Amino acid sequence: RRIGFPEVIYGEGKTAEQIAEIVKRLQSHSDRILATRIEANKAEKIQSLLPDIDLHYHADARSITWLRKPIDKKENGYIAVVCAGTSDIPVAEEAAITAEMMGNHVLRINDVGVAGIHRLFARLEDIRKANVVVVAAGMEGALTSVVGGLVDVPVIAVPTSVGYGAHYDGLAALLSMLNACAPGITVVNIDNGFGAGYAAGLINERMYKEET
Amino acid sequence: RRIGFPEVIYGEGKTAEQIAEIVKRLQSHSDRILATRIEANKAEKIQSLLPDIDLHYHADARSITWLRKPIDKKENGYIAVVCAGTSDIPVAEEAAITAEMMGNHVLRINDVGVAGIHRLFARLEDIRKANVVVVAAGMEGALTSVVGGLVDVPVIAVPTSVGYGAHYDGLAALLSMLNACAPGITVVNIDNGFGAGYAAGLINERMYKEET
Amino acid sequence: RRIGFPEVIYGEGKTAEQIAEIVKRLQSHSDRILATRIEANKAEKIQSLLPDIDLHYHADARSITWLRKPIDKKENGYIAVVCAGTSDIPVAEEAAITAEMMGNHVLRINDVGVAGIHRLFARLEDIRKANVVVVAAGMEGALTSVVGGLVDVPVIAVPTSVGYGAHYDGLAALLSMLNACAPGITVVNIDNGFGAGYAAGLINERMYKEET
Amino acid sequence: RRIGFPEVIYGEGKTAEQIAEIVKRLQSHSDRILATRIEANKAEKIQSLLPDIDLHYHADARSITWLRKPIDKKENGYIAVVCAGTSDIPVAEEAAITAEMMGNHVLRINDVGVAGIHRLFARLEDIRKANVVVVAAGMEGALTSVVGGLVDVPVIAVPTSVGYGAHYDGLAALLSMLNACAPGITVVNIDNGFGAGYAAGLINERMYKEET
Amino acid sequence: RRIGFPEVIYGEGKTAEQIAEIVKRLQSHSDRILATRIEANKAEKIQSLLPDIDLHYHADARSITWLRKPIDKKENGYIAVVCAGTSDIPVAEEAAITAEMMGNHVLRINDVGVAGIHRLFARLEDIRKANVVVVAAGMEGALTSVVGGLVDVPVIAVPTSVGYGAHYDGLAALLSMLNACAPGITVVNIDNGFGAGYAAGLINERMYKEET
Amino acid sequence: RRIGFPEVIYGEGKTAEQIAEIVKRLQSHSDRILATRIEANKAEKIQSLLPDIDLHYHADARSITWLRKPIDKKENGYIAVVCAGTSDIPVAEEAAITAEMMGNHVLRINDVGVAGIHRLFARLEDIRKANVVVVAAGMEGALTSVVGGLVDVPVIAVPTSVGYGAHYDGLAALLSMLNACAPGITVVNIDNGFGAGYAAGLINERMYKEET
Amino acid sequence: RRIGFPEVIYGEGKTAEQIAEIVKRLQSHSDRILATRIEANKAEKIQSLLPDIDLHYHADARSITWLRKPIDKKENGYIAVVCAGTSDIPVAEEAAITAEMMGNHVLRINDVGVAGIHRLFARLEDIRKANVVVVAAGMEGALTSVVGGLVDVPVIAVPTSVGYGAHYDGLAALLSMLNACAPGITVVNIDNGFGAGYAAGLINERMYKEET
Amino acid sequence: RRIGFPEVIYGEGKTAEQIAEIVKRLQSHSDRILATRIEANKAEKIQSLLPDIDLHYHADARSITWLRKPIDKKENGYIAVVCAGTSDIPVAEEAAITAEMMGNHVLRINDVGVAGIHRLFARLEDIRKANVVVVAAGMEGALTSVVGGLVDVPVIAVPTSVGYGAHYDGLAALLSMLNACAPGITVVNIDNGFGAGYAAGLINERMYKEET
Ligand SMILES: Nc1ncnc2c1ncn2[C@@H]1O[C@H](COP(=O)(O)O)[C@@H](O)[C@H]1O
Ligand SMILES: Nc1ncnc2c1ncn2[C@@H]1O[C@H](COP(=O)(O)O)[C@@H](O)[C@H]1O
Ligand SMILES: Nc1ncnc2c1ncn2[C@@H]1O[C@H](COP(=O)(O)O)[C@@H](O)[C@H]1O
Ligand SMILES: Nc1ncnc2c1ncn2[C@@H]1O[C@H](COP(=O)(O)O)[C@@H](O)[C@H]1O
Ligand SMILES: [Mg+2]
Ligand SMILES: [Mg+2]
Ligand SMILES: [Mg+2]
Ligand SMILES: [Mg+2]
Ligand SMILES: [Mg+2]
Ligand SMILES: [Mg+2]
Ligand SMILES: [Mg+2]
Ligand SMILES: [Mg+2]
Repeated sequence: RRIGFPEVIYGEGKTAEQIAEIVKRLQSHSDRILATRIEANKAEKIQSLLPDIDLHYHADARSITWLRKPIDKKENGYIAVVCAGTSDIPVAEEAAITAEMMGNHVLRINDVGVAGIHRLFARLEDIRKANVVVVAAGMEGALTSVVGGLVDVPVIAVPTSVGYGAHYDGLAALLSMLNACAPGITVVNIDNGFGAGYAAGLINERMYKEET
Repeated sequence: RRIGFPEVIYGEGKTAEQIAEIVKRLQSHSDRILATRIEANKAEKIQSLLPDIDLHYHADARSITWLRKPIDKKENGYIAVVCAGTSDIPVAEEAAITAEMMGNHVLRINDVGVAGIHRLFARLEDIRKANVVVVAAGMEGALTSVVGGLVDVPVIAVPTSVGYGAHYDGLAALLSMLNACAPGITVVNIDNGFGAGYAAGLINERMYKEET
Repeated sequence: RRIGFPEVIYGEGKTAEQIAEIVKRLQSHSDRILATRIEANKAEKIQSLLPDIDLHYHADARSITWLRKPIDKKENGYIAVVCAGTSDIPVAEEAAITAEMMGNHVLRINDVGVAGIHRLFARLEDIRKANVVVVAAGMEGALTSVVGGLVDVPVIAVPTSVGYGAHYDGLAALLSMLNACAPGITVVNIDNGFGAGYAAGLINERMYKEET
Repeated sequence: RRIGFPEVIYGEGKTAEQIAEIVKRLQSHSDRILATRIEANKAEKIQSLLPDIDLHYHADARSITWLRKPIDKKENGYIAVVCAGTSDIPVAEEAAITAEMMGNHVLRINDVGVAGIHRLFARLEDIRKANVVVVAAGMEGALTSVVGGLVDVPVIAVPTSVGYGAHYDGLAALLSMLNACAPGITVVNIDNGFGAGYAAGLINERMYKEET
Repeated sequence: RRIGFPEVIYGEGKTAEQIAEIVKRLQSHSDRILATRIEANKAEKIQSLLPDIDLHYHADARSITWLRKPIDKKENGYIAVVCAGTSDIPVAEEAAITAEMMGNHVLRINDVGVAGIHRLFARLEDIRKANVVVVAAGMEGALTSVVGGLVDVPVIAVPTSVGYGAHYDGLAALLSMLNACAPGITVVNIDNGFGAGYAAGLINERMYKEET
Repeated sequence: RRIGFPEVIYGEGKTAEQIAEIVKRLQSHSDRILATRIEANKAEKIQSLLPDIDLHYHADARSITWLRKPIDKKENGYIAVVCAGTSDIPVAEEAAITAEMMGNHVLRINDVGVAGIHRLFARLEDIRKANVVVVAAGMEGALTSVVGGLVDVPVIAVPTSVGYGAHYDGLAALLSMLNACAPGITVVNIDNGFGAGYAAGLINERMYKEET
Repeated sequence: RRIGFPEVIYGEGKTAEQIAEIVKRLQSHSDRILATRIEANKAEKIQSLLPDIDLHYHADARSITWLRKPIDKKENGYIAVVCAGTSDIPVAEEAAITAEMMGNHVLRINDVGVAGIHRLFARLEDIRKANVVVVAAGMEGALTSVVGGLVDVPVIAVPTSVGYGAHYDGLAALLSMLNACAPGITVVNIDNGFGAGYAAGLINERMYKEET
Repeated sequence: RRIGFPEVIYGEGKTAEQIAEIVKRLQSHSDRILATRIEANKAEKIQSLLPDIDLHYHADARSITWLRKPIDKKENGYIAVVCAGTSDIPVAEEAAITAEMMGNHVLRINDVGVAGIHRLFARLEDIRKANVVVVAAGMEGALTSVVGGLVDVPVIAVPTSVGYGAHYDGLAALLSMLNACAPGITVVNIDNGFGAGYAAGLINERMYKEET
């Protein structure tokens, strides 16, 4: 069953040379490669080191992907990736790209934080139709609880380090999500968009299409 | 201006005898007395120690009040005291009683946690008409952010110790409220219903009646 | 879709009388009731207060269940609930009972902590065949990572408060699980067997049966 | 009622280009714009990117403001913004500017920390006449408690990250303020001058002028 | 020089029998004995176990003392032991008794918390005349900073565990005192009245009498 | 009595220009000036900004001093400033310079950490003869307890941020010192050499010379 | 090689009946049994439940042992188990009994805390001759560093929860030991005498006898 | 017995000049020198400052070594240094080099993290034959527990700071290791490869060769 999963490289703390090296090695025997946590200038350097490999850089997701051939996505519905503020987009995009690389359809819904809850309600129908929902939120992470209370599908919450002061680099959002009052919510590490997307992909992968 | 404020006794860690003593002393020169954090059986004992003083025990608020004469409430509108779950009621009631003892009208709105957000929306008009809103919530405290985003008046958030595990006796709710994404929210100590009610009373006290 | 979900009562901090009251109220319009965090003597008292309602007490899970009619379980496979040590059983059982009440088949695999890893390997085939795996572990929670590395399905980790000293009532296990090196793992609050079982139920509910 | 409130941009982590972009967009439909957390050189760059918009940079407050026409301030009294040491001025100024942009009169009282308490007493009459008091303090934040004990109006405390060692970037001041022994004090996040000024503005906005 | 110091027993976690045993042993070769952290009923039991030893129980200080002959106190001035609220008295008294047992004159000044700062000013002259000042305070511990700013002698601060919620059993007061903005303040462990009194005694012991 | 105390500037976070400005202002009416937390290159810049003022830079203490005329030191004995490792010297020197600027004799004893305890014993007599001892130590701060057990005078402990990993920038040393088993020890904030020196100076200032 | 190791039962949170049950089961196929964390009255109950099994209760170690036949101890030297204060004895004894049950000679050295360092030096020769040293200490745990600096053999440190206030139930001692400045020290969990004794036993087990 | 131990320099926070200085001084009277925590460019500078001393730089271990003559290694078996991921190699190598400099044989086993547990099992026989095992792991540190359960020799665990978010720079791994369910594991400070290697060296040093 493992076939469809991408090889994944965690880019943080690795040099462009090290990443290029790994990409080259993996590329020989893999179908797809995903490398996360790569800033724009490092990505550029990697691309120039590997002129013969057709790497795609996703600036928002700070990620590089490579595909031997286009992905054949599962047609059993989609994963919704929802995020609270524009600063949460890098993490949400990391989740979205990860899930897409595993062969899932993803619907992105950005900037629906609870301070302006009408924006969330405007998108509610689309969120509700998803098979799984990923919620990325920093600050107090309240979006998770609100979404969890409004949908009947599994919700995967990823706290982001977006905030300051008593946010403690994501701790406030993490605790908030672990204590969310709506059931059906599970949580991954702070800023771990990859983990959220991966878990969502594992779940969606074998869901059958629900008739409505 | 201070005239209308009650003398306040913090009951935790004091014996029935000690509280009765203080009540007796205060009663000679005060108009109104408020004693908080008093469990039912301690209250009973205090009442039996002071048969001549007409003490009123509020079981929900775990508080005792005494009034020389009925309070003449300000007619400039009301404070809304909103709480997330039934376990938060003791803290919410402490806030409500405190504000009432200061001469404010209080509207209580219980059990409107975000896991069932339609219950909150059902009461929204009443919350919006308040001059100040107190929100008491445990768990992840997301109600504060949602309410803060929906009203245009000052919101005073009081985190409660209701929760378990990574709730850390209210820390999760406290951090959540300090990081709330909607502006206009200020926070008091965990379980400090008194402090929230008092600050709300100070604010409402001098608000003029808005014409709608 | 919500039909099959039980009404749930969180028993901690509620008196037998309060729980009996809620059960009575829910029973009129529900199919199934689940009440968790109830010690044996409290359960007995609840049962004696409701002689006409056929409540079932699960000592291991510290839970009470009631069913109007036997549950018709989904025949699409099962959820594996795995736990590390015998002290983790109450949390694991809370997860198992929750999932069963939602109509899932559950396979319990106890006492397979990593200190004696051969016991885990002896049960590996059964774990691998599950649609979802719940892992309950205290101490350092290493079982989660090991299981996560061995299976290709979603793993829901529930840290337990079993430990002492620098365990900090589950914090060590919680952090361990949030940092698990195997992807596909998501986490719920400390001791939150209910939450783990509920999320597993939501996932399994719509999984199709995989042909092997 | 919202009319008078400025559109607010949180500058931290945004590039000059991004901020200029948002300013341009907001300016078409707003009366007033406030952008906080902007260092001098970034401000300069923003100004040079928007030569046609008359932006005002407040170095002390690290904030940019823009007004279509002069603000017509409410004549019902003022907000006092009090700060402990000169290092707390940026946070205090953020609060002051925010309140002013909402149409409030603000009285600034700097450098009245409790180590030299006579300086505070020298300004006490002015503080007491305010409708609301904002106190910005780092270190141990004791100023909040002293002020809270001396005035009868709502006090909004904003802990600053000014300190070192066991100050933990504002945690010491935050805890101190949450535990302040004088009632009537509410607290915002560490360094959140904007939040304090905004809440103070909400309160002052509808206070009637007290006759003395 | 050590002659005048009492033998000290830390009573917490020791049974009446164990303490009686130690007292008996020490009494044979000591001039004075001090036993702290002893509740009233345990003290009574110890006294009844040692009917021939003339033990004195100080209820406020939760301490037992024994003296072979009256202490001959140094006539070089006094230590002021100042405390914020009545709940801090046990810790303050532990400090006072300790210092007295070392042969110092002690002046007790209770209930001068900063919420009612006029009470502190009413006693300021007496505090200023001391050779050393011990300040015991819970809550936010602001009294320490205020006193430290008003006197020119060494101040020893002892945070007490009096408080709730985000007080964290004295942590808030401890951090506050470590970050006090007035110089000349040093700090001992939470509730360590003994340590504060002992250090104050060491300091006062060799101070000469200042001519005024 | 205050006459002999230096005016003190905390250099951290201030520019060379700001410090030069303050020095110039203070110099007109002070006898002595002390400025701490100033790196070598900033010091140089300050000196070049004030060519007419005879500033002295102490590289080890990262401090600048200025004296109108030589200090006339008290002849009643000395303060010992003891430190554990060479990395603790900046903090120890800050304490030593502070005490000297207040008119005290200071004996410096460096590099006597407990890992090589014979080095400490080699200097014990000198430490014992001091009127007060300041101990600066990072890592686990055990030196404080050992010294405290060997001397009969007040010990002021200053934890340093020297360490790594679970040292948490001085927290390990701070907790260690607050829990030191030898009585007579009081503690200041992490890296607060100034505070330790100042408190030691206050104590030594009025100690009479003990005849031996 | 495992032959000599005892079967171990962790008694905390188990009832007398459960422990008796396990003992009975283990006794059939084991040589030796060790059960830790058992208070005196529980031990008595276990003994009365198993009248035919010759259980030995060690009150100081709060442990029960059972031996089929006397242990034949290795004659290659000994493990020193050193402890700081009398309150640390239960943990030290748990370590000592564990090591003895594994067949090691153990030398106990109690009450040699650093506040009276001469007591430690009086025993130094015996400590130095050991093959491994276990140090149990609460408070600030400084004994570990001092011992580590004086011996050339592996030191295993076990922090105890003995302390109060900012001790945080052993955290202060734990951090102190992890940051000990002398090399050769490793650490186990708070109060984990068993773990320390076990590791010491593993080390001593295969040490050859050094000729001196 | 101390003869074989290297003189050790902790390079962090020291300049190339300072390190060169110390090396020069030590070299006159030592057999071997070890300097840790030195980045490549600093190492180069040190080497160029000491052209006459034959320093060896180990890039992986970020360490410099110098030997007067080749080490004569003990022939009683080896220490296994096992690490979880490639990012843990610097810490593992620091441990390995330290042990080698003390005269031990070391077997390095890299990249056997539990996410792919078959890689660990592939190397199990070699690990089991070691006299002592050092395990370096970041993330959740589960490798320690798994190894501890599979070997019968002492295991020294060194948590690394490799991780992000709720890893808290090694805290998650540290707590995990302190709570490891397999006995025989002791722990050193985060990233303290030196300490782990040193303790392993002390243990291995006197182990006799076991006949198999
Ligand atoms: N929940 C509370 N209820 C009553 N008083 C409180 C509470 N929390 C803090 N306080 C403060 O405690 C004071 C009364 O304390 P006491 O004099 O000990 O009875 C009041 O003036 C309040 O400022
Ligand atoms: N110190 C601050 N300054 C400005 N905005 C803030 C601050 N703290 C929180 N905020 C919130 O951040 C929002 C602006 O964020 P953004 O849309 O990212 O620019 C405002 O509406 C505020 O609610
Ligand atoms: N609050 C306290 N009261 C008495 N002794 C204390 C206290 N805190 C710490 N100690 C120390 O504990 C020692 C007595 O402990 P013990 O020998 O267990 O009775 C004294 O010598 C003090 O140094
Ligand atoms: N203080 C302790 N005493 C005994 N066993 C312990 C202790 N701490 C941890 N353990 C572990 O707990 C296991 C026994 O737990 P149990 O099976 O619950 O009785 C032992 O094998 C030890 O590895
Ligand atoms: Mg839901
Ligand atoms: Mg609002
Ligand atoms: Mg997996
Ligand atoms: Mg006030
Ligand atoms: Mg002073
Ligand atoms: Mg001493
Ligand atoms: Mg040693
Ligand atoms: Mg083992």
